[in-house]
Amino acid sequence: MSRRKLIVAANRGPVSYDRSVAGERIVRRGGGGLVTALGSLVAHHDVTWIASAMTDEDRMVAAERADAAFDETARDGSPYRLRFVTSDPAAYDWYYNVIANPTLWFLQHYMWGLPYGPDLDLGLHTAWFNGYLPVNQAFADAAVAELEREPDAAVFFHDYHLYLAPKLVRARCPDALTAHFVHIPWPQSDYWHVLPEHLRRDVHEGLLANDVVGFHTLRWQRNFLHSCEEILGAEVDAATSTVHHDGRTTHVSFHPIGIDPSEFDELKNTPAVLEEERLIVSRRPELLVVRVDRTDPSKNIVRGFRAFALFLDLHPDMQGRVTMLALLDPSRQDVPEYSEYLAAVQREARTVNDRYQRDGWMPVDLQVADNFAQSIAAYKQYDALLVNAVFDGLNLVSKEAPLLNGRDGVLVLSENTGAHEELSEWAVTVNPFDVYGQAQAIHTALTMAPEERRARLEATRDHVRRNDIAAWIAAQLDDLDRVGARVST
Amino acid sequence: MSRRKLIVAANRGPVSYDRSVAGERIVRRGGGGLVTALGSLVAHHDVTWIASAMTDEDRMVAAERADAAFDETARDGSPYRLRFVTSDPAAYDWYYNVIANPTLWFLQHYMWGLPYGPDLDLGLHTAWFNGYLPVNQAFADAAVAELEREPDAAVFFHDYHLYLAPKLVRARCPDALTAHFVHIPWPQSDYWHVLPEHLRRDVHEGLLANDVVGFHTLRWQRNFLHSCEEILGAEVDAATSTVHHDGRTTHVSFHPIGIDPSEFDELKNTPAVLEEERLIVSRRPELLVVRVDRTDPSKNIVRGFRAFALFLDLHPDMQGRVTMLALLDPSRQDVPEYSEYLAAVQREARTVNDRYQRDGWMPVDLQVADNFAQSIAAYKQYDALLVNAVFDGLNLVSKEAPLLNGRDGVLVLSENTGAHEELSEWAVTVNPFDVYGQAQAIHTALTMAPEERRARLEATRDHVRRNDIAAWIAAQLDDLDRVGARVST
Repeated sequence: MSRRKLIVAANRGPVSYDRSVAGERIVRRGGGGLVTALGSLVAHHDVTWIASAMTDEDRMVAAERADAAFDETARDGSPYRLRFVTSDPAAYDWYYNVIANPTLWFLQHYMWGLPYGPDLDLGLHTAWFNGYLPVNQAFADAAVAELEREPDAAVFFHDYHLYLAPKLVRARCPDALTAHFVHIPWPQSDYWHVLPEHLRRDVHEGLLANDVVGFHTLRWQRNFLHSCEEILGAEVDAATSTVHHDGRTTHVSFHPIGIDPSEFDELKNTPAVLEEERLIVSRRPELLVVRVDRTDPSKNIVRGFRAFALFLDLHPDMQGRVTMLALLDPSRQDVPEYSEYLAAVQREARTVNDRYQRDGWMPVDLQVADNFAQSIAAYKQYDALLVNAVFDGLNLVSKEAPLLNGRDGVLVLSENTGAHEELSEWAVTVNPFDVYGQAQAIHTALTMAPEERRARLEATRDHVRRNDIAAWIAAQLDDLDRVGARVST
Repeated sequence: MSRRKLIVAANRGPVSYDRSVAGERIVRRGGGGLVTALGSLVAHHDVTWIASAMTDEDRMVAAERADAAFDETARDGSPYRLRFVTSDPAAYDWYYNVIANPTLWFLQHYMWGLPYGPDLDLGLHTAWFNGYLPVNQAFADAAVAELEREPDAAVFFHDYHLYLAPKLVRARCPDALTAHFVHIPWPQSDYWHVLPEHLRRDVHEGLLANDVVGFHTLRWQRNFLHSCEEILGAEVDAATSTVHHDGRTTHVSFHPIGIDPSEFDELKNTPAVLEEERLIVSRRPELLVVRVDRTDPSKNIVRGFRAFALFLDLHPDMQGRVTMLALLDPSRQDVPEYSEYLAAVQREARTVNDRYQRDGWMPVDLQVADNFAQSIAAYKQYDALLVNAVFDGLNLVSKEAPLLNGRDGVLVLSENTGAHEELSEWAVTVNPFDVYGQAQAIHTALTMAPEERRARLEATRDHVRRNDIAAWIAAQLDDLDRVGARVST
């Protein structure tokens, strides 16, 4: 693989800065699957990463560099350049806490109860034009500045924060090679009608300003092709997965993201993980149903508890023998829909325990905390892993956990996760709305014959190891090569 | 048009029976747009109508006839045959109050807030297999019995109550000519995933057992073609609007339903309507925004009030000069989602009035009652008519009201109503989620130049008169002729 010049544009950067109690600048790494995923990109290519300045210290760093790019080093020592985009705090709040989360996130996961929400009042219009648009403009300005320095670099946009930026770049750099990967589901055209016409057109036209638009699955790719047709009247060639609009051609691909198996192989036996595992083992009953999620309404945690209660009801012999261990990372608690959902999760866990709990057995063990080591330990200890998301772009838990599991645990997987396209053959499929079906699936998973459980787990692992993050990055670069060649000829 | 033999299968019949205080059997006519719509079918063809027995007296009538068909006469004196399907009350409750409303109705109007609803627990599975299926089976049995009597008759199924019946008829009468008209929106395939796989397949396979499936609009027709492809893997020929599945071919058409202008011409000057109109005139301020709806969450009444408040806020000169008259027919109050929605409607009206009301002027005049004469009177009196439904299969108010309006009133119409495909050219289009956009649209409508208002209203009326109910029925019969000819060759 030849070394390339790449400009990555993503809201979150690979590092963020903070200040220690002693007043010294410190660097925080990690945070988010995307940063991990793109780590190996940094190792093998010349990468300039454009990201939002999120902390006060990020803003200080940006100001010291006069908003220009500067040199940083990745965890493995690889050098890369980092460039912060600094936004007015009110604009950033509108962009992040009004438009990206919850509006676009809710829309793309089909989460609105449409008779009641959303209310696109003056606040939303203001947030779009004074928040989402200017932050996207600032990202576009930064990308254009980097392209002026390195005209041969390709720009790689990420996710739903930056739908408007590609068209703003295209207007000034008509020949730039750009790709955009959407990490969340793409809903069908009717649901895009939640946005007023000019906004839903702007989203689609923004993406189509790229040479490549990528999704995790065939399903989201097909939905995007259809919605380009329905919303823009664009010309779609399904056979070649291309969209022709406004005199340009965009290639629409799908490549499910993978994980870095070596990262998890290393994590597995770290002292922190072993200590958490010891705690889990000391508390666990005979069987353990595990779920690991952010407390996001798309994750379907409440129905998971209801399904577990129904399973206990239908199979009284299981009472006292199984616990559902729910490890939940509190998420976006400055968005009211998320606070409400966390309350609903806590209330449902309480309801199940009030009904079934008895001396020496807690049916639902709910842990709301950001504890990565505990999650890794739980990956090793599950007999059934419940991933029942309402909708999910991919779902990495369903790939990470089987890699580490030591009990021939069975994956119970929602048909609305992206990972279902890859893993359904070896999982027990559930409809996320079907509480009764999920209760049956938990029972199926926990009573499956040992040899079948083992065979399914091994097949899943094989798939996850073969289709790793390196394969995903290679696929992204192949897409760029293909359209780059087409553009040059 | 030649006289035909037709078997109409619809949940609601053209009449229902009751018992007077004196103990005598009385006949109640009307109830529902479908019955009105099919009135002229009865006038010109040999119709046998299969309907659910709904009242105790209906059950008595059915029992007296040993569940066989009997002779009745329509309002205009035309003879037809009526056959009641009598269901076990628990089965009917599951069929009607659990599956049809709210499950299918909510699903087909995109109304679920998916993180919270629906819960497809044991109750739903029970309701499907012990309610929706047996009631559909009973309708199929009745249709088969009528087909045995008249093998040349065509069967015309209606709406979301009867998705399973056509396949049950087809199994026993493989050569019967059948059509099915769906009067509500057809959502896209992702949203059908709210139903577990075997249920969503049953819905699609049930409909595809017909020779013709009809919708109001191109949009719902296209959604159906796509969902047959996505959910059943059926072969779709978009050019001919046909679906090939399971060795059969189904023609999928769209014909927006019309109204009977003569009915409204007569109603306009009845004493009851004139009295209601006098009351409205005596109370009205300079300008009147009218909405006429059932209290259904799909009708978007709460956002309508919010938009009106925002309009008053943005245009203080309009305060005191405009009232929003909301005439709401209470609907399905035995379904909790509907009771909750009515409360939300009342609360929002109160909020707006608490904020703006002053001596001599009530901003929102909310009337919750089943008062048809009042609605007709309001049709004559509006300056702007607000139809902002979240989703609506067609929406007849947007056709009825312009026919009678005497003030060159302007139609403000949601882009998600079926009628928008026909009337958008002469309406002010709104996005139903965009409260700010609706506030602007109300202002646009109320301040439009008189000659433009008149031209738009006249064009709308022309369209409604030309595309009346007779044209719709002719189109249905043409579809049957076309597929009948194809089947015979």
